[in-house]
Amino acid sequence: MDKIRGHRRENERYRVVILGAGFGGLWAIKTLVRYPVDICLIDQNNYHTFFPLLYQVASAELEPEDIAYPVRSIVRKFPNVHFLLGRATKIDLKAQIVETDARAVPYDFLIVAIGSLTHFFNIKGASEHVYPLKTLEQAVDIRNQILTCFERASYETDEDFQKSLLTFVIVGGGSTGVEFAGTLAELIYGHMKRDYRSLDFGKVRVILLEAAGKLLPNLPDRLGNYARERLNRIKVEVRFNSKVSEVGPDEVKLTDGSVIRTYTTVWTAGVRGEPALNSWGLPVNPNGKVTVLNTLQIPDHPNVYAAGDLAYLEEGGHPLPMVAPVAIQQGVAAGENIVRQISGKPQVPFHYNDQGIMAVIGRRAAVAYLYNRFGFTGFPAWIIWLGIHLFRLIGFRNRLLVLTNWAWDYIYYERVVRLILPAKPLSEKHQEKS
Amino acid sequence: MDKIRGHRRENERYRVVILGAGFGGLWAIKTLVRYPVDICLIDQNNYHTFFPLLYQVASAELEPEDIAYPVRSIVRKFPNVHFLLGRATKIDLKAQIVETDARAVPYDFLIVAIGSLTHFFNIKGASEHVYPLKTLEQAVDIRNQILTCFERASYETDEDFQKSLLTFVIVGGGSTGVEFAGTLAELIYGHMKRDYRSLDFGKVRVILLEAAGKLLPNLPDRLGNYARERLNRIKVEVRFNSKVSEVGPDEVKLTDGSVIRTYTTVWTAGVRGEPALNSWGLPVNPNGKVTVLNTLQIPDHPNVYAAGDLAYLEEGGHPLPMVAPVAIQQGVAAGENIVRQISGKPQVPFHYNDQGIMAVIGRRAAVAYLYNRFGFTGFPAWIIWLGIHLFRLIGFRNRLLVLTNWAWDYIYYERVVRLILPAKPLSEKHQEKS
Repeated sequence: MDKIRGHRRENERYRVVILGAGFGGLWAIKTLVRYPVDICLIDQNNYHTFFPLLYQVASAELEPEDIAYPVRSIVRKFPNVHFLLGRATKIDLKAQIVETDARAVPYDFLIVAIGSLTHFFNIKGASEHVYPLKTLEQAVDIRNQILTCFERASYETDEDFQKSLLTFVIVGGGSTGVEFAGTLAELIYGHMKRDYRSLDFGKVRVILLEAAGKLLPNLPDRLGNYARERLNRIKVEVRFNSKVSEVGPDEVKLTDGSVIRTYTTVWTAGVRGEPALNSWGLPVNPNGKVTVLNTLQIPDHPNVYAAGDLAYLEEGGHPLPMVAPVAIQQGVAAGENIVRQISGKPQVPFHYNDQGIMAVIGRRAAVAYLYNRFGFTGFPAWIIWLGIHLFRLIGFRNRLLVLTNWAWDYIYYERVVRLILPAKPLSEKHQEKS
Repeated sequence: MDKIRGHRRENERYRVVILGAGFGGLWAIKTLVRYPVDICLIDQNNYHTFFPLLYQVASAELEPEDIAYPVRSIVRKFPNVHFLLGRATKIDLKAQIVETDARAVPYDFLIVAIGSLTHFFNIKGASEHVYPLKTLEQAVDIRNQILTCFERASYETDEDFQKSLLTFVIVGGGSTGVEFAGTLAELIYGHMKRDYRSLDFGKVRVILLEAAGKLLPNLPDRLGNYARERLNRIKVEVRFNSKVSEVGPDEVKLTDGSVIRTYTTVWTAGVRGEPALNSWGLPVNPNGKVTVLNTLQIPDHPNVYAAGDLAYLEEGGHPLPMVAPVAIQQGVAAGENIVRQISGKPQVPFHYNDQGIMAVIGRRAAVAYLYNRFGFTGFPAWIIWLGIHLFRLIGFRNRLLVLTNWAWDYIYYERVVRLILPAKPLSEKHQEKS
């Protein structure tokens, strides 16, 4: 314990600061809260976002409130947890202080779990013109953009412009890209078709661009092929070996020279770490993720841990995937290692218990790959997906509301959340037919 | 019919354009849709807002989606109704064309039902610094502002600044002001108190400013007195004869020279018509509302009607109130008069069937004044209010969701929508403690 200087005076409780109210941060709290420590949770939002269903907000399937849960509703159950709404502006590893735009918070132990940011790979125009899908605001933006494009197209007489408005490009064939493409196609060909009766839906295109030669690269080929076949069936054009070279306000250029005219490019292609982490002295890999020891500690800073998307850790020669189960297990593991540290016991290395990966492609269609051995497709996989996601949603009420929305959609083929809110002005570029 | 030039050729259907998807516009459609006319509904939002519950979105009681219903879900049931998302930029009464930022729409008959705007009475600083409560976006703004003030106050050490953050002023003692003050006090002293355990709630103030000497001026004194007594009981300071002279970023000045330090002033004090109406040639009163004949027609333009908040019409020497029932009945009446006009029958004057006015003040507390005769207070009035509002909410699903939220709140004293979304940066003025 001699390396843990900290701010604690004799007989005071240890202060644990947790940066980020995502899966990693919340499960760390769940672990630590039973012990005599003071916990301060810091996040720039006052809610936890259930990221695995974010794409359903973007496709008008769920309301943003369905997958957001107020942090204070969670922490107020525990007298030793406090919440601070703020954005970290610096981690001072030497002084053991987290500086935020709200106030500075000293720590004895720190868990950094702020997740990841969208990676544009320095592709020209991408950061200005694409729609990333990493936050609740961005998901709402995408929903508003899709609906606005349909409204604008519904009275457009210039056919080329109308076609550009009705072309939707998704970059990235991982699980988010596949899931979003599936639900978008269902929104369009199921729901929108009844809303825009005078529109020729032969002009609509949903294009999924994947740089490699297969979908769902983490899963066995059979599942990727199934996903592709299902997506084709619901009219998604899946294009392999398609790398984006440039994005403009009204087009996507590919490295093979082809150009797709569109006003809506959703980017699910890559993530990276928060760039500031490096300047604060945390060791990062080329992708900006924090390199951690197998105990989830940061080298040379035994009282600082990282968990979730942000943490770079290999297992069996492969980096761990950036999914909710890894974040949850790492949050628990980091919390347990802090408890061990306080009581003078040795820390334990983290091992990921991989229960499986899943992706839903549409009505009664999904792929599931469980325990690295069992592949499911179709209806059984969809039922597994449904149950697990409902179970994992924090808060009974959210579970109830999500179930209501899903059931409604399933029974009536009706998406209830087709609101353009906040109202989205047709941007200059749309008006000018650039 | 000779005055109805219109755009219709022989054997073509009459084109009815309805400006505004509020209560007036939708009920006009409900009336007209059974007749062989082509209807075009124009609104700047793609959803109908259930205005009577807007204040509950502002107080984090309901989700915005609960009281918004997609217009296309309504109109798609009727093959002779089309929807255009657009804002009217001009009504050309001579050419019989509504120009919008989307496209121009010719009409044979027109119903103008675009509602009203907030009236600031030229009070200095009001339009820049107050929070109006007339749109769904504004309601969400108010919710985010209140929650942000509490988050900011929770770690503030400067006591004066903290008190300003925790002071909430509501201007206007009509039903919106009374209802919002009641639900805000319940939010704060019920829900927030458990979320911000370290905060001294003795520093919180909710102040309702009324320029006249009583609350709910349209109702008998007994009901206004009841409202005042109930509001006082839940710690709302009701101040009579309090006229605002100026609003700054961090204060409200009254005409008696007193100053209230606050960052949150919600304005429910007045409404007026859209200023452009006058320049388009419609006859308006000093408040900017359109003066209509008792048939709801506009003088000299027998094929143009106005309905709802926008229309100025007196009955029994008093102007009709700006409430949903008036708009609904006028929408129906305007639709029926157009049908009469088409079939060559004389139009019928509008008479308001006043079934009552209600306002809810909090848990199990409301006032109701029915058929201009029967006054109720307390629990019976609250039950009447509850039933009527649920019944009137368009769409079964919204009814279900609203009921879920209300029941949840009622049983668990828990407001579920306490999200700051979109994230609200603490504005400069908050940072600088101006």
